Amino acid sequence: MSTVLQQHIRKFVDVSDEDLTSILSYFEKVALTKKVNLLEEGKVCKYDYFVEKGCLRLFFVNNKGVEKTIQFAIENWWMADYTSLQLQTPSEFYIQAVEKSEVLAISVANRETMLALHPKMERYFRLVHQKAHAAAQYRTRYLGDYSKEQLYLHFSRNFPEFVQRVPQHLLASYLGLTPEYLSELRARRIS
Amino acid sequence: MSTVLQQHIRKFVDVSDEDLTSILSYFEKVALTKKVNLLEEGKVCKYDYFVEKGCLRLFFVNNKGVEKTIQFAIENWWMADYTSLQLQTPSEFYIQAVEKSEVLAISVANRETMLALHPKMERYFRLVHQKAHAAAQYRTRYLGDYSKEQLYLHFSRNFPEFVQRVPQHLLASYLGLTPEYLSELRARRIS
Repeated sequence: MSTVLQQHIRKFVDVSDEDLTSILSYFEKVALTKKVNLLEEGKVCKYDYFVEKGCLRLFFVNNKGVEKTIQFAIENWWMADYTSLQLQTPSEFYIQAVEKSEVLAISVANRETMLALHPKMERYFRLVHQKAHAAAQYRTRYLGDYSKEQLYLHFSRNFPEFVQRVPQHLLASYLGLTPEYLSELRARRIS
Repeated sequence: MSTVLQQHIRKFVDVSDEDLTSILSYFEKVALTKKVNLLEEGKVCKYDYFVEKGCLRLFFVNNKGVEKTIQFAIENWWMADYTSLQLQTPSEFYIQAVEKSEVLAISVANRETMLALHPKMERYFRLVHQKAHAAAQYRTRYLGDYSKEQLYLHFSRNFPEFVQRVPQHLLASYLGLTPEYLSELRARRIS
């Protein structure tokens, strides 16, 4: 079924072809057009999503009605509201396709069954979440330390592909800049 | 050895007494006086720490020389710079005992050996990191949405014990408030 997820799993754990076939059978393939929501505020997050192609974002609408993006997921990243997923409580987030995307979705129940059958996948998900936890620590550090210009430079140096790809107003929202200031920074770098 | 960690592990996974004894044998008990550093900027994070008693904080020193706290760990929480721990690269953080504390430390090598022997612990750590990842998503949401006053109210409502216990200047640093503004908010709530 999926060669993208297959390769990603094998980067972290050693699983047989037979096990992989069984593991992948618990996922549903979902094709998304741009701006489709996979989760909306007030709804329960029922799936954990793996991005095979395209890009998702996690955002909330603040008390002034402005969308604030707090995470992106491109190929090989997972995305869910993990509080809502784990506790099956209503979410305070939206998950939306930034561009035409293909994701693999696994429901909470399927994930539990799959993990019971394939305990090696606990290690895979442990490493995935540990990496995300690690990234959140450094993101908080840079947001609290860098000037807005340094933040943008740090981001373009470390994730150049990403900066090229994500619409500028969403990148600005993620970095806490105004779209105007972001284009000014980009213009300054190019000139 | 440790009844605190033992109980915490059993909240998430089912392990025999024999296995637990073996698991705990990979940890070292460390007693800390207030303000002792377990990790310093520029050093490699060699241990993952579980708090049995007391409180740790993860902080960095910003470009103005000011300490900024980004995480606390009280009883039953884990703490490490997970980037530095995983990649064995120098850290950009400090880990410090906020008060007299007792922690259990497991080295990277011991953690790998223990996980290979007790794969059930992968599930335990998967759930620990998934919870931390989930908490980081909501923390980012509240920091980006709430006014400073709302942030403090949200925090005192959800973690009352914690707010009582952590020194006020550290709590202020964590919430992004000045210590003066925090005492003003507290005074307003009490009156």
